[in-house]
Amino acid sequence: MGIRVAVAGASGYAGGELVRLIAGHPELDLVAATAHSQAGAALSAVHPQLAGLDVTLTATDPAALADADLVFLALPHGESAALAARLPDAVRVVDLGADHRLTDPAAWESYYGGPHAGAWTYGLPELPGQRAAIAAAGRVANTGCYAATITLALAPLIAAGAVEADDVVVVAASGTTGAGKAVKPHLLASEVMGDLSTYKTGTHQHVPEIKQATGARSLSFTPMLAPMPRGILATVTARPTGTADPAATLRDAYAGESFVRVLPDGTFPRTAATLGSNACHLQVTVDRDSGRVIVVSALDNLGKGAAGQAVQCANLMLGLPETAGLSAFGVMP
Amino acid sequence: MGIRVAVAGASGYAGGELVRLIAGHPELDLVAATAHSQAGAALSAVHPQLAGLDVTLTATDPAALADADLVFLALPHGESAALAARLPDAVRVVDLGADHRLTDPAAWESYYGGPHAGAWTYGLPELPGQRAAIAAAGRVANTGCYAATITLALAPLIAAGAVEADDVVVVAASGTTGAGKAVKPHLLASEVMGDLSTYKTGTHQHVPEIKQATGARSLSFTPMLAPMPRGILATVTARPTGTADPAATLRDAYAGESFVRVLPDGTFPRTAATLGSNACHLQVTVDRDSGRVIVVSALDNLGKGAAGQAVQCANLMLGLPETAGLSAFGVMP
Amino acid sequence: MGIRVAVAGASGYAGGELVRLIAGHPELDLVAATAHSQAGAALSAVHPQLAGLDVTLTATDPAALADADLVFLALPHGESAALAARLPDAVRVVDLGADHRLTDPAAWESYYGGPHAGAWTYGLPELPGQRAAIAAAGRVANTGCYAATITLALAPLIAAGAVEADDVVVVAASGTTGAGKAVKPHLLASEVMGDLSTYKTGTHQHVPEIKQATGARSLSFTPMLAPMPRGILATVTARPTGTADPAATLRDAYAGESFVRVLPDGTFPRTAATLGSNACHLQVTVDRDSGRVIVVSALDNLGKGAAGQAVQCANLMLGLPETAGLSAFGVMP
Amino acid sequence: MGIRVAVAGASGYAGGELVRLIAGHPELDLVAATAHSQAGAALSAVHPQLAGLDVTLTATDPAALADADLVFLALPHGESAALAARLPDAVRVVDLGADHRLTDPAAWESYYGGPHAGAWTYGLPELPGQRAAIAAAGRVANTGCYAATITLALAPLIAAGAVEADDVVVVAASGTTGAGKAVKPHLLASEVMGDLSTYKTGTHQHVPEIKQATGARSLSFTPMLAPMPRGILATVTARPTGTADPAATLRDAYAGESFVRVLPDGTFPRTAATLGSNACHLQVTVDRDSGRVIVVSALDNLGKGAAGQAVQCANLMLGLPETAGLSAFGVMP
Repeated sequence: MGIRVAVAGASGYAGGELVRLIAGHPELDLVAATAHSQAGAALSAVHPQLAGLDVTLTATDPAALADADLVFLALPHGESAALAARLPDAVRVVDLGADHRLTDPAAWESYYGGPHAGAWTYGLPELPGQRAAIAAAGRVANTGCYAATITLALAPLIAAGAVEADDVVVVAASGTTGAGKAVKPHLLASEVMGDLSTYKTGTHQHVPEIKQATGARSLSFTPMLAPMPRGILATVTARPTGTADPAATLRDAYAGESFVRVLPDGTFPRTAATLGSNACHLQVTVDRDSGRVIVVSALDNLGKGAAGQAVQCANLMLGLPETAGLSAFGVMP
Repeated sequence: MGIRVAVAGASGYAGGELVRLIAGHPELDLVAATAHSQAGAALSAVHPQLAGLDVTLTATDPAALADADLVFLALPHGESAALAARLPDAVRVVDLGADHRLTDPAAWESYYGGPHAGAWTYGLPELPGQRAAIAAAGRVANTGCYAATITLALAPLIAAGAVEADDVVVVAASGTTGAGKAVKPHLLASEVMGDLSTYKTGTHQHVPEIKQATGARSLSFTPMLAPMPRGILATVTARPTGTADPAATLRDAYAGESFVRVLPDGTFPRTAATLGSNACHLQVTVDRDSGRVIVVSALDNLGKGAAGQAVQCANLMLGLPETAGLSAFGVMP
Repeated sequence: MGIRVAVAGASGYAGGELVRLIAGHPELDLVAATAHSQAGAALSAVHPQLAGLDVTLTATDPAALADADLVFLALPHGESAALAARLPDAVRVVDLGADHRLTDPAAWESYYGGPHAGAWTYGLPELPGQRAAIAAAGRVANTGCYAATITLALAPLIAAGAVEADDVVVVAASGTTGAGKAVKPHLLASEVMGDLSTYKTGTHQHVPEIKQATGARSLSFTPMLAPMPRGILATVTARPTGTADPAATLRDAYAGESFVRVLPDGTFPRTAATLGSNACHLQVTVDRDSGRVIVVSALDNLGKGAAGQAVQCANLMLGLPETAGLSAFGVMP
Repeated sequence: MGIRVAVAGASGYAGGELVRLIAGHPELDLVAATAHSQAGAALSAVHPQLAGLDVTLTATDPAALADADLVFLALPHGESAALAARLPDAVRVVDLGADHRLTDPAAWESYYGGPHAGAWTYGLPELPGQRAAIAAAGRVANTGCYAATITLALAPLIAAGAVEADDVVVVAASGTTGAGKAVKPHLLASEVMGDLSTYKTGTHQHVPEIKQATGARSLSFTPMLAPMPRGILATVTARPTGTADPAATLRDAYAGESFVRVLPDGTFPRTAATLGSNACHLQVTVDRDSGRVIVVSALDNLGKGAAGQAVQCANLMLGLPETAGLSAFGVMP
């Protein structure tokens, strides 16, 4: 008899990945999987990869969730706060949504609009101090997928003074699952395959989260949609200060980490190498012409960018081995 | 201290997947990973998804392998027999190659050429009697990827007399890893993406294996190359006899199986649902116009079609739970 | 001042391709492009590839179309007949929909339902006698995309008695544009990329059209959805009669044709080679084990499978060179 | 009887696209198509999309080319200069390679190594003054594919003083044909599909060409490999000066151009919209957080990035309409 967990929003892509990870987790038992319009359906009718898992989606009812030891919330923006407020304090919660990530209400209002629900412990264990904070928390706000990719690349460099916090420029490309399962014309396969485009160019709502988590003071962030289902590749550039070696700083920051790996010199990250895993791969170099520091970061947006990260946080919160039920090795090719 | 296993041919795609599965297996320890031209390289330099796994590829030397309890052979055609002959009898062997699959020397010579190395126990546990035979065997010949896909769809129907063994027609499409890692012009990404083609049209060397494993007497088999890395989807059609219900026959055949699943009525297999897993998904229907029985079968050519199947066989041979280290749930989307 | 043409249903994929072809046609002038829900939008807002073409979509009004010399109808099932009835007889019409393809009302009712609108001249110029019939017609029913692919492969063989008309088995895979632009969950890029599946397995509504156009008496047809935007690859198998050589028959049938090409011996079709063109590539072989004749056929479902075919028919109807505005060469890779 | 043109290096991807464009060009006749290792092969055996074009590849012999009015050189680095030197002055030459692009010998030696072959007229007609220069030239150095994408986005802004020439940061992703047809392991379909990665990170040899063509003084350029055959999407960011409006500057620069198009406000470029065409699509915005100017630029690397651009230059050199044989409309989706 394992630890009882529930997934609210199990019909989406992050929800499906959570259930897949829970099904392979040695300590967690899924006691509820909830959905909105799909309530009543077999989970495997919504997620064909879970064929054989005999679970029926139920309505997202606080009572159904309150019975769990830990609840994962994988809901649309703005729905987490209300649901979390109706869960007993004793039920631990990991929110995969954005509602509780930002500490600055003004930043929330500016990028998301509406009232700010308040900040929870930020769920990125590899940041200094966060591992212990997450382990002690009852409520954890999981990182955004872009924010995880970029923060792991940049935060140690700014913290060490290796790069300037001003004029950081990031271009990052995501697979289509990053856009969720909502049926929108521009996400049709006919539109995406063979195509690259930017979106929310210069206006993406993850900017304040990235600035908060990395310490960047000025950030140009351009996201791209790439013709593949999963994966984020971020190119993070910043001006060097000359006071600390970027490569040594990154290697020090992640020495001993199970999931974040600075690749051998000369080897650059590939998103495919992280597919289905909780790994984040990093490499850093200095641009020959401009002298800018370039950090390249890759992860699976549904893995270390969402569900994997959430399970890692849950492991910490529940006193389990941090790596339980998670793989550092991607499904490739 | 787990059971000691080795992988010969670890630099290829099936070899890499074997190492990934072994790394996540609760009972197996990798004691050697060998290669030919890549001997001496870090395993993670060849398989970026295994970054962090500290293994160096060594030369494919029988002495290095003899120390293992079980050796997986993932070698090119014709190399397994010679190597296996130099391994002690006490070392169990699972051969992912074709050398030991065929019982008929004439069929071997006709399709592969050269002397026949002799048949080993056929490594498809879901066939009647094979589970026990594999558990008792010291040498197992893993199925071919197409053969697994098609045999799971067809063998029970022919065995039950539900379809005729004559004039079976199969068209099956494979992802590119089925063609291996050899660098050939027609396998360049520029050539494959956005393209579909047939290959070895009407002449594929898996035909005798498929006939042997399914009982088909006459088989038209057309393989296609599909623009995706993994997955096989086979459309298997045969004329009904009218003496047994195809759907009921298939459901009976796989009741209680962990990895082979006949989907709910009206749901057809998708290769993506099996990605990275050891699952095979099946559905059967009757063609409205012709009355032919159509069975659709999907699996991951590197999973149930190669490395997953091999680990399943190894589990049986080693007295481990058959599902150890294997997932029935794919990484999707 | 060219010949005046209009496109009804210009917001869909076939409609967009028609406009692209018309824009590059030396003799045709686009005088109206109509749509339903998108009426009022700039054409290039709906079809980004047409940026710079200053056309506004208008409502699908017979009056707006009646002013053209020829109207292309690229409408959903069941909408062509009503609209065509309201166009003057002097306006030539090419219907890309299914409404007017079938000669047998019973077949229509069985597969499509509803009243049969009556058959028009079938728009496949390479069939014996059709070139002249199309040139003389005021109303032409363009082929279905699967029907074009399969008919070009099979019709000459049945006509020559080279293969039996019974027990034809076809498996054909299509890119996603074949499913149109309607926003459906299973057509999301996240669902399609990396995936293969069958659909309408054993029940596709093109079966009666294919039987009518090829002369097949019994047809098992399984369509697949492939992870690419365009292209159909059909594997057509039939039992040989022994009375005529299949390869010679096909070569004779298409000698002198501009768009249908039997490839050199040993070269098999690839869909990519036909992308964006009006070409259909064919090859034929005999299966080594079963002796079945296998014809492989490739074309662009929006090209020779829809818009290209329609322009070819229009050229004939208008007395223009049959190849005007069309290319036999694909955009590859 | 048209103008006689030849293609040296017709077996590569740019060479194949050149032949496709020449085959559809109203004024050009292909009189020779040469290759190295493929000499003697049918062109359509190398380029399946050209099935039906009866051309045999010949050896790359100056004598064979000297008979043409204009020769396109689509050769590997370092081979153009030697061949061009052996062609009569009266034969016009468009070189698609890098040999003659750079005016600064030191830049050539630093990034390419070996002796500098000298600069030819730079083949980007939309740059101020270049249209006339190209029309008057006997030797033209076609742009690099990345250089074309980035220069069209950036050159007018620097020229107008709208952005600073220092600290330009560019991240651009290319489809795989940009890497050519050489058979390399990392270009296998199994490796590329579902994957994103950077390459030549911070060291790409197009940097000096981009700086020369745009006027940028400091450039951080990170190229990415994207899982699609064609297309480049560049995100170009630079700090605004505040003295000129970027959007108005770009619109003014390209008013009246046939192939370079600044999209309507709020519409961002997509590579797919340019597939197979000679179009380049642009959009510009200002980053909300950092204030950086972001220009997004898309084109087909084999179209406006190579073969299309070359035909456009050839049209100018030959006194033909600049748009002859070229389309501004992509094959999409």
